[in-house]
Amino acid sequence: MTYFIPGPMSRGPLGGGELERRRGYLERHAAPGTSVSVRDWHRGPASIESSAEEYLSVPGLLEAAPLLEAEGTGAIIVGCFGDPGLSGAREVTAIPVVGPGQASAHLAAQLGSRFAVLTVVDEVVPAIRRQMRGHGLDGFLSEVLAVDVPVLELRGRRDEVVDELELAGRRALRNGADALVLGCMTMGFLDVARDLQEQLEIPVVNPVLASLKLAETLVATGMAPSAAAYPTPRKRLDAATV
Amino acid sequence: MTYFIPGPMSRGPLGGGELERRRGYLERHAAPGTSVSVRDWHRGPASIESSAEEYLSVPGLLEAAPLLEAEGTGAIIVGCFGDPGLSGAREVTAIPVVGPGQASAHLAAQLGSRFAVLTVVDEVVPAIRRQMRGHGLDGFLSEVLAVDVPVLELRGRRDEVVDELELAGRRALRNGADALVLGCMTMGFLDVARDLQEQLEIPVVNPVLASLKLAETLVATGMAPSAAAYPTPRKRLDAATV
Amino acid sequence: MTYFIPGPMSRGPLGGGELERRRGYLERHAAPGTSVSVRDWHRGPASIESSAEEYLSVPGLLEAAPLLEAEGTGAIIVGCFGDPGLSGAREVTAIPVVGPGQASAHLAAQLGSRFAVLTVVDEVVPAIRRQMRGHGLDGFLSEVLAVDVPVLELRGRRDEVVDELELAGRRALRNGADALVLGCMTMGFLDVARDLQEQLEIPVVNPVLASLKLAETLVATGMAPSAAAYPTPRKRLDAATV
Amino acid sequence: MTYFIPGPMSRGPLGGGELERRRGYLERHAAPGTSVSVRDWHRGPASIESSAEEYLSVPGLLEAAPLLEAEGTGAIIVGCFGDPGLSGAREVTAIPVVGPGQASAHLAAQLGSRFAVLTVVDEVVPAIRRQMRGHGLDGFLSEVLAVDVPVLELRGRRDEVVDELELAGRRALRNGADALVLGCMTMGFLDVARDLQEQLEIPVVNPVLASLKLAETLVATGMAPSAAAYPTPRKRLDAATV
Amino acid sequence: MTYFIPGPMSRGPLGGGELERRRGYLERHAAPGTSVSVRDWHRGPASIESSAEEYLSVPGLLEAAPLLEAEGTGAIIVGCFGDPGLSGAREVTAIPVVGPGQASAHLAAQLGSRFAVLTVVDEVVPAIRRQMRGHGLDGFLSEVLAVDVPVLELRGRRDEVVDELELAGRRALRNGADALVLGCMTMGFLDVARDLQEQLEIPVVNPVLASLKLAETLVATGMAPSAAAYPTPRKRLDAATV
Amino acid sequence: MTYFIPGPMSRGPLGGGELERRRGYLERHAAPGTSVSVRDWHRGPASIESSAEEYLSVPGLLEAAPLLEAEGTGAIIVGCFGDPGLSGAREVTAIPVVGPGQASAHLAAQLGSRFAVLTVVDEVVPAIRRQMRGHGLDGFLSEVLAVDVPVLELRGRRDEVVDELELAGRRALRNGADALVLGCMTMGFLDVARDLQEQLEIPVVNPVLASLKLAETLVATGMAPSAAAYPTPRKRLDAATV
Repeated sequence: MTYFIPGPMSRGPLGGGELERRRGYLERHAAPGTSVSVRDWHRGPASIESSAEEYLSVPGLLEAAPLLEAEGTGAIIVGCFGDPGLSGAREVTAIPVVGPGQASAHLAAQLGSRFAVLTVVDEVVPAIRRQMRGHGLDGFLSEVLAVDVPVLELRGRRDEVVDELELAGRRALRNGADALVLGCMTMGFLDVARDLQEQLEIPVVNPVLASLKLAETLVATGMAPSAAAYPTPRKRLDAATV
Repeated sequence: MTYFIPGPMSRGPLGGGELERRRGYLERHAAPGTSVSVRDWHRGPASIESSAEEYLSVPGLLEAAPLLEAEGTGAIIVGCFGDPGLSGAREVTAIPVVGPGQASAHLAAQLGSRFAVLTVVDEVVPAIRRQMRGHGLDGFLSEVLAVDVPVLELRGRRDEVVDELELAGRRALRNGADALVLGCMTMGFLDVARDLQEQLEIPVVNPVLASLKLAETLVATGMAPSAAAYPTPRKRLDAATV
Repeated sequence: MTYFIPGPMSRGPLGGGELERRRGYLERHAAPGTSVSVRDWHRGPASIESSAEEYLSVPGLLEAAPLLEAEGTGAIIVGCFGDPGLSGAREVTAIPVVGPGQASAHLAAQLGSRFAVLTVVDEVVPAIRRQMRGHGLDGFLSEVLAVDVPVLELRGRRDEVVDELELAGRRALRNGADALVLGCMTMGFLDVARDLQEQLEIPVVNPVLASLKLAETLVATGMAPSAAAYPTPRKRLDAATV
Repeated sequence: MTYFIPGPMSRGPLGGGELERRRGYLERHAAPGTSVSVRDWHRGPASIESSAEEYLSVPGLLEAAPLLEAEGTGAIIVGCFGDPGLSGAREVTAIPVVGPGQASAHLAAQLGSRFAVLTVVDEVVPAIRRQMRGHGLDGFLSEVLAVDVPVLELRGRRDEVVDELELAGRRALRNGADALVLGCMTMGFLDVARDLQEQLEIPVVNPVLASLKLAETLVATGMAPSAAAYPTPRKRLDAATV
Repeated sequence: MTYFIPGPMSRGPLGGGELERRRGYLERHAAPGTSVSVRDWHRGPASIESSAEEYLSVPGLLEAAPLLEAEGTGAIIVGCFGDPGLSGAREVTAIPVVGPGQASAHLAAQLGSRFAVLTVVDEVVPAIRRQMRGHGLDGFLSEVLAVDVPVLELRGRRDEVVDELELAGRRALRNGADALVLGCMTMGFLDVARDLQEQLEIPVVNPVLASLKLAETLVATGMAPSAAAYPTPRKRLDAATV
Repeated sequence: MTYFIPGPMSRGPLGGGELERRRGYLERHAAPGTSVSVRDWHRGPASIESSAEEYLSVPGLLEAAPLLEAEGTGAIIVGCFGDPGLSGAREVTAIPVVGPGQASAHLAAQLGSRFAVLTVVDEVVPAIRRQMRGHGLDGFLSEVLAVDVPVLELRGRRDEVVDELELAGRRALRNGADALVLGCMTMGFLDVARDLQEQLEIPVVNPVLASLKLAETLVATGMAPSAAAYPTPRKRLDAATV
């Protein structure tokens, strides 16, 4: 399967090494027999920290998804917690396309009654609320809290992030959450969910692993998003854009 | 204000005359003193009949919106019932950006208890259901029905469309709807809503007029989408995409 | 169109000058070509600050509405945020009858995700919560806060009201609202919404303008509340009451 | 306790004998020791078959309720399924004021998962839907069906009503209801609920008995509607209307 | 009717006297003519303070319910606020089986807009939240608060319980509740609801009385849970367990 | 991990061979490295086709779960679609306990907008509706349909079951479902989901595989149900039952 980063990560500050590092992380957590490749795209935002940037990442995904399917990949994981373009990508492919935000929320909703999302910057908080409403999961979301560290600084300020996540997590618990979701893929790759889970003694969903495991589940069981919910567009997309 | 068509309509089968025709229609229905321009974009889908095509129309909107704002337009109407890119465009501008689907649904919800949406082709039915869920309006939507005529054939098959809308409208009424919404902007510009309303004796919302009037309302009252809900992205978008 | 005050305002402490003042305010904000008259009624409460007083204002509205329609008015705005008698007045007329609370809430719900209502006295807080539930808008309402100034003292204590609104607005923001609605028509005529909006940097809906603009929208587009949702009563109302 | 009919029933076609008949019915079904009086009012609609008529019945209730309380009655049952004026009457009294529609719906919601309401004429169908939404009980309501017999003809066309109720009840069952509510007090006094229940083998709530038993429950347990939800109006109502 | 305690209370620390005391309490609050017996069961938990203990109490209820019905009892009250086994017991009997939690919640929802539940220990808080969601009453529940006194210590620490209930009740009020429900039957039998109600001036539902009165209502009106919602199992239960 | 059948299947008509057959099926679908054992219990219903039988299966689960945990199993799958005892079993263990109904519903909700459940007999239809409401998933459920074949006859009438599932599935599709869930574990082990999926061209969730994959996911990611949602009971359960 393919973890698809809808932007030019290898040409940005994180560099191509980050792709390799992510592939390693995914493979270490994949079920035996699952092979995972990581791909970025030559166009798209350097990082995704707003609804606007989410949208700018989608044309890359829509162009790449049929190519990846044609290459034979078994499933695609959208490399952004906001699930940008999820419905569109499902329309243009027959293989499973997995949204990390959706996968994480449904996982958290099975482990507790109400989950909080802990994310990077304040600007994405309302976008994540809209995302959960759009997925029909409003009733499970208690709140969204930000640690105020931008995506591209997460790795360099890892200790600070860990401390802030613990603070935000404790606040969310006091406000009624009984499960947490990390609301950013780069945060997921920091590999802090499990430590946080042990400190706070409630489940902390890592969206990287939630989406990886959902992709594995769909491939293993021969399932894919419904063609009745995501019908193939009547026009060819490359003809559709002039 | 500007009615923005997020694709190259003037270079497509409808041609530049269609832009002028739409401008005329809008001006005839605008309040005195409101001036409306109609703009299309050099990139984007020829028509929007799927979630994928909705997404492909968004980069144009995100690029155009700040330019239109800089030119001094007072408000932008997104030229697609699906409201593609609405949240993103609101993030990158301070002027009102209006979504026809959202405006129509909130108008219909004030005129009855449950509205049905009548739209073009089956492929957009699930997208419209997701759209209403995303806007938090699930509880007002009774169903979405399609007349099975593609966008680009609507004008040429006008009589058939009118007949099919009446049939679909009667079915929606029997199933419990007490208001209707036309779920396509080209359908709105066909100018059939009012006749349908008289035939069926329930309100029929034309999304062209619903969005025009909401834009006028926001301009007249000095209101715009909340900066707390649509914060300005921290990074400049033109720097964000490589 | 007619702004209808369902009580004897001209004979109360505010006097007939207040009607003229309100007419002036409405005309200044109306679209060119819209003429607005303001009418009060010889019976009804001096002000409306409870569910009971809302109900006492309704017979006047139900008596006046068909008369105003017969006189040729194009639309009626119910002069109370609580929308008292809205469904009844829609049953006995064919022209648009607009509820300021409903119009304001639907407007706010398009500008943010969750709005708070700021109103006059504690006694109306639960009534406004019930009102929003009745309109099916529970999911958009964050909370209702009161400034503890009765309706008839609003004008005399304007500065205090402005300060209290700012305090309440900041509290609502901290609690998660991203838009505000002023929950009283007399508060709306104080003309403080726009200043508050600038101070707090989130949209503040003035129910006077929200209802005026909805009425203009309905008149301009030839729409009215659904006869399927508000059917004409079988018996004549004047025969119905003995 | 007092069963209050908010209109001049004794001077209408049913006459004073109907009041006595209703008192007899209530007393036969009351718990030992409960005494029930039936009162009508000199003003108000002859019957209630629209939202407008509901509203016209409320001033009588608001005037009568404090008088009945002063006379020492233990509770008031509002004599209309639509619960007109319920919140207002609760504000102006400290004793329990019971709404038959609310009481019936909460009873039905405990006996099944989704109930249908069977009522008199089509015109009240949307009003009952709004009523259930207002009570927060939308999720329990499957549909509202009318037998198309006006209130004042119910007794004279009893056999027809019984047949139509059975037909409507079977249709509601097929559509997913597992309990029924009779949506009209005069229908309740026809004493057909129990027969219908035996024919259809699902619970049929008689709103007369549901409200009588709720009133008895509140009196017996010393409970009344919350003063926090229904606060006493600040102004005296008789001063409030000029 | 029978108040059924699904465990060996008479052989536990409270002893057989407690059964007699509860019978006395119920009879004092029953309508004239209602006879109430109190029965415990030889198996089942000593007290119910978790979901697991709720489940362990159900086989006793399912065994006892048909026996009690055969003995001629008119209704069964499940002796636990959590309503354990309610749906199952309704399947295996034709008489009313009443759940105290469900009865209390529906009563509270008629007296205010949002109720809080005050209960014994933190461990049952999430179970009560799940219970209310399962009954479809999420929208009426503001929060669940615990006084941190185990069931079997309630009577011995009565004064402390009363103080803690008042504190918790005031907190719930500040957080938006306008009615309270005591979330434990032993707490109900402490007979503190009415005092608390007077101190806090909002309704406090005693689940003992709420379920007693609902049982009386169902018996008096000849109603029982819907056979369409609680169908008789096809297999005999005694054959079903090997 | 352990697939736990909460009844004496090996001593019933299906016999011990069925356990072995199920173990084989699970192992064939498990990820490499996952070992699955299948265990039944000496007490409990022969099959589960009602709420009552669900409850009767729970004491076995609550007794077995801590024993299985002590034996070192990594996760427990509750062997009934109705998820009987799920919350209780989670309270008494620290390892993941997975409910097939919950796992299937959350999986289906990610593949479409609204799923229908196809199950065995009419008697379980209302129980499954209550189950989905309890899980907070009402908004995703379109309907529940039964094929009218009891659990113990499923294998012997396989062809008929397949035909009936196809008919029911097509009806569900027409009514608006875009995904299906098989609502019975024995139906899941029939291994018909995939064929049905190909015939109907929408996803068909097999609850056996949905729960197996969720269990694998939780084990692989080190997650378990929240201790804040499922706290350990204060009393030892074996002391709790006398």
